[in-house]
Formats: sequence, structure tokens, C-alpha cells
Amino acid sequence: MRRALELAASPGVPLGPNPRVGCVLLAADGSEVAEGFHRGAGTPHAEAAALAEAGEAARGTTAVVTLEPCNHTGRTGPCAEALIKAGVARVVFAQPDPNPVAAGGAEALRAAGIAVEMGLLEREARQLNRAWTFALEHGRPFVTWKFATTLDGRSAATDGSSRWVSSRPARVDTHRLRGQCDVMMVGSSTVAIDDPELTVRDEYDLPLAHQPLRAVVGLRELPEDKRVFNDRAETVRLRTHDPRAALAELFSLGKRHVFLEGGPTLAAAFLRAGLVDEVVAYVAPMLLGAGAAAVGDLGITTIGDALHLQITDVTPLGNGPETNVRLTMRPIQADPDRHHRNEETA
Amino acid sequence: MRRALELAASPGVPLGPNPRVGCVLLAADGSEVAEGFHRGAGTPHAEAAALAEAGEAARGTTAVVTLEPCNHTGRTGPCAEALIKAGVARVVFAQPDPNPVAAGGAEALRAAGIAVEMGLLEREARQLNRAWTFALEHGRPFVTWKFATTLDGRSAATDGSSRWVSSRPARVDTHRLRGQCDVMMVGSSTVAIDDPELTVRDEYDLPLAHQPLRAVVGLRELPEDKRVFNDRAETVRLRTHDPRAALAELFSLGKRHVFLEGGPTLAAAFLRAGLVDEVVAYVAPMLLGAGAAAVGDLGITTIGDALHLQITDVTPLGNGPETNVRLTMRPIQADPDRHHRNEETA
Ligand SMILES: NC(=O)c1ccc[n+]([C@@H]2O[C@H](COP(=O)([O-])OP(=O)(O)OC[C@H]3O[C@@H](n4cnc5c(N)ncnc54)[C@H](OP(=O)(O)O)[C@@H]3O)[C@@H](O)[C@H]2O)c1
Ligand SMILES: NC(=O)c1ccc[n+]([C@@H]2O[C@H](COP(=O)([O-])OP(=O)(O)OC[C@H]3O[C@@H](n4cnc5c(N)ncnc54)[C@H](OP(=O)(O)O)[C@@H]3O)[C@@H](O)[C@H]2O)c1
Repeated sequence: MRRALELAASPGVPLGPNPRVGCVLLAADGSEVAEGFHRGAGTPHAEAAALAEAGEAARGTTAVVTLEPCNHTGRTGPCAEALIKAGVARVVFAQPDPNPVAAGGAEALRAAGIAVEMGLLEREARQLNRAWTFALEHGRPFVTWKFATTLDGRSAATDGSSRWVSSRPARVDTHRLRGQCDVMMVGSSTVAIDDPELTVRDEYDLPLAHQPLRAVVGLRELPEDKRVFNDRAETVRLRTHDPRAALAELFSLGKRHVFLEGGPTLAAAFLRAGLVDEVVAYVAPMLLGAGAAAVGDLGITTIGDALHLQITDVTPLGNGPETNVRLTMRPIQADPDRHHRNEETA
Repeated sequence: MRRALELAASPGVPLGPNPRVGCVLLAADGSEVAEGFHRGAGTPHAEAAALAEAGEAARGTTAVVTLEPCNHTGRTGPCAEALIKAGVARVVFAQPDPNPVAAGGAEALRAAGIAVEMGLLEREARQLNRAWTFALEHGRPFVTWKFATTLDGRSAATDGSSRWVSSRPARVDTHRLRGQCDVMMVGSSTVAIDDPELTVRDEYDLPLAHQPLRAVVGLRELPEDKRVFNDRAETVRLRTHDPRAALAELFSLGKRHVFLEGGPTLAAAFLRAGLVDEVVAYVAPMLLGAGAAAVGDLGITTIGDALHLQITDVTPLGNGPETNVRLTMRPIQADPDRHHRNEETA
């Protein structure tokens, strides 16, 4: 299964509506017969790739797969059927398929007399496709809100200037995270004011071959010459103020992971709606003392109503004066006992 | 010298106007004859302590000291003279004395025919007394500005509530840092509004035996029943708006390390005057979206004039939902090439 997970995580697998999956076929003596992984929408599933490599040798093997073999006919036939046809003796998979359309593979295999085991390294498999898993379980894309802020919570100075709050190492890291998502989303003011291109570039500042979709949320018309509308990547306008509607539209386009890049007003709308699943903050050790806030009004007036996050990672980026800090967090539910617990020290 | 530094850093040495100093007397064969360290103002200097322990055996030894032996008569006699009288053959010290009143010990020793070497582990010795060294070199106390902030740069919610922005582990850490300073300073509004006691408590919430001085800066009269005026520690009023004058008064009281605890207005005055030497920020992963800013107006209107800090340490404090992040920084001079350097990525 470790090898299957490695295969699934192969670098260069383009993201899209499909999960990362790896498959290894093992002979009765435990030796490897063939392996395969899914290379993205429209290409063979991991099981199909492994079966193709094995040919007749697939008969009697154990298929070790990171995800429950699918049971529906998409652009490729159902994998459960292919495994049955190839004469595989046993199937071990990590994560049950959360996709209501594709699930049922385990049942189909068992019905065909194949021994099925599940749950091996499931946690790792879920982590590998955490946004995809979340999206299928919740029927909407997973949302990562990323923002850059000064130490005192400003996103720009009072004259509106904001180039650059983040240091170069932090900007390079932002592009790396952008490349792991399938949508980059901004509000229309950010397009109107900052005119970002919203493409993903590598550390040499060259655009990646595969670009996430760009999404601009808001009702107003925007000039066609804005860089977000150039031909370096696809762009959709989401003409709504309802974060849930915006996400529904993206989900129906097969998008599973939204990288919400602001600005403060759009981010606040998502936060208020409880539609932020992960927060990535790039903190620049810089003080402005005034200027636009990094996050818009949340309707919070007293400390007890603060929106609490839990830090899951703290990473300094860069060296010397260029050092910024990346904080990764997830929202936590308000804990009614919190105040009480904290009253102990003054 | 390592042993001498260890002695100097002995736990429980109370802070005050004096540096931490350790001394080891070595026989010609390198074996240790005696050792001593300074236990705070009014007690024997490290050299005197070691000489007293050695008695007649001090004759012909090498004295290894973390700081240049003093040459002035304070509450104890000059150490240079004591070393000469005791018949010490050689003196090795780490850091030259930055105190203009006390310096000249090396010269006095040499004049008496004693071999003198300096500079061994000087960096470590300076670090041990960094605030004291800075204070004597600059003629004013070293200033550490500490503040607690939400992720979005707020120190309180719009209704003024701020208990608690920091988690308990961060508050315990704050008390640890308070205990390393000799003054805790706040502006009069913080006293008027928050009524903090400003004492140092240990992790069991018990007050330390030795409390730093409490200093309240501002012109207004404050009610006598404010907790900062209770008898748990001494308190001075600094009736000025001039940060430099406030520091001068504290320096003349023998204070070398000020822990500036806010509020935002007083901190901004110190920042504008260039009188903050270290910044410690406790970042709580909490969003308010509105409320009092963690730092007051700095007179900055454009991003190019931002006050830049360099991160020297990043430490997560606590676990799970209680995790806060402590960032330690020092101000850096504005770099005129910075904008140019950064224009490379968009
Ligand atoms: N620090 C950072 O990480 C960061 C990131 C991005 C931007 N920024 C800064 O943010 C500034 C723009 O701020 P902003 O907050 O106005 O930008 P924004 O959030 O990008 O755009 C606001 C617009 O989003 C649309 N919108 C969509 N859903 C909405 C909702 N539920 N409620 C209200 N509006 C909604 C509205 O557009 P319509 O009027 O078209 O309906 C609204 O005018 C820029 O100057 C930029 O520098 C900072
Ligand atoms: N997040 C944190 O770490 C933190 C820490 C402390 C306080 N706070 C919050 O800060 C709030 C108080 O804010 P604040 O900024 O008004 O408090 P502040 O900075 O403590 O006090 C302001 C007062 O300081 C005096 N002052 C001294 N030098 C000054 C100068 N150069 N310029 C102007 N005033 C000077 C003035 O007092 P006179 O009028 O008497 O002359 C002024 O009114 C409290 O509610 C508290 O919750 C937050």
C-alpha cells in the first residue's frame, strides 16, 4: 500500500475533478507483477493502467489500490468490472470511494467472489486527496483562504499601495499552493484595483503548463483588458454575492479545491457563511499602523464571538530580512467552555 | 570560560542594574582552584566571590572572567585591585566592560604586570548581558515591545473586550519574559481601561519574589485604587509624552531592560521615535474583522515607508486549539534597494 500511495502521489499528475490513485498488483509470493497510477481526467484509472501492464499475468494477483475501485462507467469503464474480468483473486484498498456515483465497487467485487479488504492506511490515502474527499463528502469544493498580512493585520497602506507585503520566498510559496488547487478565486474589486493575472508560475517565474481555473466573484462589469481575462488560463465570472452559489457552480464544473485569494470583502463573506475550510496566512514582519484591514467585517463585536482557528502548521519562509511566516489553520467550532477555562489567570 | 559563563547564567540571579558575571580561578596545571558569580546589586562581584573562596590559594592562578574586571569603587571595591592584591598571575576575560565608569580594569591589571587576554567567547558573554550591554553602550535601557494580537491585527473587539486574545501558554510565556526585564511599562490608558496588576507570576500563578519595577507613562491623574499601584511591586509614574525622557528617567534609576507592554498609542510613540530594540508578538489564531488595532498610528501612508522588522525566532506555544505563535523580531533599517529588488515577480 505504501508503494501504491507513492504512485498515487507521482509528481506532475495534473489536478482536476479526479482523485490521485495508485495501484500495485502482487503475486501470491508477494512480488510485484505490475503497477499503475491515474494521470488525470481522461486517462486510464490506476487499476486499468496496472492491469494493462500486467496483461495475462494479472490472473490470481492481489490488487492493492489506494481508493475503492470505481463501479461506474465514466470516460473509462468501471474498474471493479475490469478487475473481475482480469481474474484478480483479492483486492485491498485504503479509502472507500466517497463519490456517490462511483461507490459500490467493493460490493460488486465481493459479489463476483473476490476477497476484499479495506481501510489499510486509509488516513494517508484520505490525506492525499483531502480536498477531493471533502468535496465529494460535502457536495461542494474545499476552500483554502489565503491572505498576506503585515504583523499588524494590514493588507495595504492608507494610499492603497500593497506591493509587496509578502517577501519573495512567500510569493513563491503562494504559487506552489496555487498549483495544488483547481480554482483561484477573487472578488471583483481585487480585479478592478490590483489587476492580478492569477496564473501559477514556478520559482523561475515561468507559467506552469496546467493552469487552474480563474474565478471572479461579483455582479459588476469589468473591463475586458484586465489581466485575469487574458488567454494564459481559463476564467469564469460568478455573478453572485452568495458564496454557496459560487461554490455550487464551481462544483458542477468538476472543481474540488478553491484557493480563495481575497480580497478582504469576499473573504469575510466566505468566513461569515462558514465556507472556509483552511486558512493560510503569510505574515510579513512589517508594521503600517494604518491601512486596509486584511479581513473585512465579520459582524463580530465582542471577543467571545471571535472566529477561532487552530494552527496546524507554522513555517518560516526565506532567510534574514526576507523571512516571512506561513501559518496554516483550520476553523474550530466555538467552545462554550472556553471563557470559563481561561478565567483562571489575570 | 564555558564554566565561567555557566556560573554567570546561574538561575535565580536577580536582575538589576548589574550584569551577570562568572569567574573561575585556575591553577597552573589547569585545575580549578575556586569559582564565583555575581548574585546581584549589593553582593560581591564574581571575582571577589572566587577570591574569597580561594583565599591564599589564589596566588599565581589564572582568573577567567566573563566580563572585564571593574576598575571603580561601587558598593564593592574595584575587582582589578583585588585581583592584583591576591597575586593572580594572569587574567582572561570575554567582554570588555562597556560601562564608562567601570572600564579600565584591563589597563590597571597590565600596569601591575599581570598578563591580560580578552575576547574569548565574547559573543556569548555579550549575549548573556545583551540588554545591559546595549544600555551601557547607548546610555538608555534596551526596549522590548511585547504585544498580543489576533491574526488580523486586533488587540480588542469593537466593544473593547480583549480577555483573552492570547491563550494560556502564551500568557505564561509572557510572564517568563517579564521576569527577565527590570521594568514593565504601560501607557496611562491601559491602566485606566484594563487595570492590569503588572506583576510577574510563575506557571502556578504565584508572584515571583523579585518583581520588576512598574512604570506608567502619561500626564493624567489616575485613581489610586488601580491595581498597578498596589504593594505587590514598586511603581513609578513617568509624567511625559516623550519616550526618550521616559527612558532617561528609568536609566537613571539603574534600569537596563524595559518591557513595553502597550497600549497601541504608547507603543506607536516608541516605534516612531526609533526606540524599540526588540519586538515580541504573540499571534492568536483568531479573527475579529474589526476592533482596536494592535499598534497605533505610525504616520505611515505608503507601503514603501513601512517599518520593517527581521524575524529572529518563531516559536509555537501550546498545543491544539491553544496554540499561539510567538514571533521575535528586531527593527531593520529601511533598505532603499528593496523595492527595486522586489519588482521582479508580479
Ligand atoms: N492581502 C491580501 O492577501 C489581499 C488579497 C486580495 C486583495 N487584497 C486587496 O484588497 C483590495 C480590494 O478589497 P475588496 O475587499 O473590496 O475586494 P474583493 O473582496 O476582491 O471584492 C469585493 C467585491 O466582491 C464582490 N462580492 C462577491 N461576493 C460578495 C459578498 N458576499 N459581499 C460583498 N461583495 C461581494 C462585490 O463585487 P461587485 O460589486 O462586482 O458585486 C464586491 O464589490 C485590493 O486593493 C487588494 O489590494 C489583498
Ligand atoms: N494587545 C495588547 O498587547 C495590548 C497591550 C496593552 C493594552 N492594550 C489595549 O490598549 C487599550 C488602550 O489603548 P491606548 O493606546 O489608549 O493605551 P496606552 O498606549 O496604554 O495609553 C495611551 C496614553 O499614554 C500616554 N502617553 C504617553 N506617551 C504618549 C505619547 N507619546 N503620545 C500619546 N500618548 C502618550 C497618554 O496618557 P495621558 O493622557 O495620561 O497623558 C495616552 O493617553 C486598552 O483597552 C488595552 O486593552 C492591548
